[in-house]
Amino acid sequence: MTLQQTLESIRPLNVKAMGDAQARLDSLTKPLGSLGRLEELIVRIAGINDTHMPKVDKKTVVIMCADNGVTDEGVSSCPKSVTASVTRNFTKGITGINVLSSYAGADIMVVDIGVDADIEHVGILNRKISKGTQNMAEGPAMTKEQALLAIKTGMDITAGLKQKGINLLGTGEMGIGNTTTSSAVAAVLTGKSLDLLVGKGSGLTSAGLQKKQDVIRRAIEINRPDPGDPLDVLSKLGGYDIAGLAGCFLGAAVQRIPIVIDGFISSVAALVAARLKPESQYFMLPSHGSAEPGSIAVLEAIGFKPVLNLDMRLGEGTGAALAFLLIDAAFAAYEKMGTFGDAAIEQYHPLE
Amino acid sequence: MTLQQTLESIRPLNVKAMGDAQARLDSLTKPLGSLGRLEELIVRIAGINDTHMPKVDKKTVVIMCADNGVTDEGVSSCPKSVTASVTRNFTKGITGINVLSSYAGADIMVVDIGVDADIEHVGILNRKISKGTQNMAEGPAMTKEQALLAIKTGMDITAGLKQKGINLLGTGEMGIGNTTTSSAVAAVLTGKSLDLLVGKGSGLTSAGLQKKQDVIRRAIEINRPDPGDPLDVLSKLGGYDIAGLAGCFLGAAVQRIPIVIDGFISSVAALVAARLKPESQYFMLPSHGSAEPGSIAVLEAIGFKPVLNLDMRLGEGTGAALAFLLIDAAFAAYEKMGTFGDAAIEQYHPLE
Repeated sequence: MTLQQTLESIRPLNVKAMGDAQARLDSLTKPLGSLGRLEELIVRIAGINDTHMPKVDKKTVVIMCADNGVTDEGVSSCPKSVTASVTRNFTKGITGINVLSSYAGADIMVVDIGVDADIEHVGILNRKISKGTQNMAEGPAMTKEQALLAIKTGMDITAGLKQKGINLLGTGEMGIGNTTTSSAVAAVLTGKSLDLLVGKGSGLTSAGLQKKQDVIRRAIEINRPDPGDPLDVLSKLGGYDIAGLAGCFLGAAVQRIPIVIDGFISSVAALVAARLKPESQYFMLPSHGSAEPGSIAVLEAIGFKPVLNLDMRLGEGTGAALAFLLIDAAFAAYEKMGTFGDAAIEQYHPLE
Repeated sequence: MTLQQTLESIRPLNVKAMGDAQARLDSLTKPLGSLGRLEELIVRIAGINDTHMPKVDKKTVVIMCADNGVTDEGVSSCPKSVTASVTRNFTKGITGINVLSSYAGADIMVVDIGVDADIEHVGILNRKISKGTQNMAEGPAMTKEQALLAIKTGMDITAGLKQKGINLLGTGEMGIGNTTTSSAVAAVLTGKSLDLLVGKGSGLTSAGLQKKQDVIRRAIEINRPDPGDPLDVLSKLGGYDIAGLAGCFLGAAVQRIPIVIDGFISSVAALVAARLKPESQYFMLPSHGSAEPGSIAVLEAIGFKPVLNLDMRLGEGTGAALAFLLIDAAFAAYEKMGTFGDAAIEQYHPLE
């Protein structure tokens, strides 16, 4: 079955379940609509789950880890070896996502989809496609087959998580150089300028930022990606992490699991998924707007605005884990608040 | 001791503790500053507590409940009796703040500071100043003595909570008509237009919104409050809930307890406190920007931007309770993440 054939199986949101969820929300003792975007989250998750009483009690953040050949151009303030080091650290419980996912009651799944090191570990799922991508400033980062394999990897992982009963997904990544690849993909897919999209990543100087822009410009000129062909853009300018996460977004839509977008890299993966299959957007939920300047612009391109404004730029899925807290809180209110019948109030506001 | 004498005892934030907290943050295995505004929260709470390892494990949301005489003008979509009903419902565990504070591990303290009904209940602290304020469209809502007593009530409550070991406060309110009073106070104190500040509260029609603006304009014309005298503005146009919360903000600064601003009404109380004693701002933390149009503008007037964008308009302290989750998560990361020593990474980015 081809990718597009698989994607044809995505069913729309369940309108009946969404209506039932809104009716329940409207029966709770509060002014109509006063839980704001928390109500939207609940209604959409109801539509995804085909029931107005969905569960979001089994959460996993999938963390796609990969190296990027473009680091040969000196686009990052960190040495490439940090990708492997941090990927290993995910198994030690000491990283930001370890602590925040644990706080949010979520598991993590660490995937080596293309780290340029041998990092066999029982806590790391080995789905390595190759030891990093090629340098996009000299030619395509991936072949189309590699990009498709990375997408399929993400889709297979979501299918496996569905079988394990996971009902809320988050998206994380680790890969030195991946704000560079993400900015390049975003620039071509959105048509927005590099000045708007390119940021300092983990900590570039201003001169480093200029160089990063130049490298991206060169990569686009050399590869001439077709803005109307998301797979072409992804394979020439992306990375295995972005492609793998795009697969997670598409897989979540196929499997009907709500999936939370994290920061800039994850947003770009969501954009790629949305361009490959627009219906996949309905299964995505926003979290934060990161400190990377392109973050908000890319979210807007797929119709989202962040619920959290924390100027974070840690990646790893940390923003998604924080959004899990809000989703859990929303469902606590939805499940446990009293109704107008309990409240001895006729109604919070009259019909207009 | 006069109010101003008491406020003179507010000490500045502890710069040494803040520096130590930032140093600890910079030792954690992440790019420098990458936890963004979560780092700011941690550093400020360290400065408030005079230690770089503060605790935020005992949380209370203070909910000031009061009626407003201006409801005689028909400025709300709800009958005035809803104030007493919802205040009672706080003791039944069925309201939004009951569920969300419980989810966040926080207690609530329900204060009757001026509800227009007899609502004696073991779960409601009776600090009633009078049965609602006067109608500000016909004259001052409160006497200066009443406003000062409401402020003192809030300050006394925070002192009592400090003695009980509470180390993180939230601010909530319940009072039909209190978006009207809040808009009036905000308009005079900020100089911003009523078009920008006045919203539909719990659910006015467009005609109702116009009437609400007219009533506020009349109240300002009749009372001629002095924009340079926050107590004059508060007593003529405010309510006991706003005054009581302003007292909580001032009291939190005196007691050195971090205190989270909730939505529009709470933000206006924070603005009043900041005008009475600018140093009190350093003890305040933002939560959400509410759906009331004046919310962001008032927060900006005291130098804050929201961390949550949920378009909520429920009040009760619900946004503050959600912010507690983020503060807790920030401290989980701060206390439990590994250092660069643990991480086998030299540094996440080189000196520039």
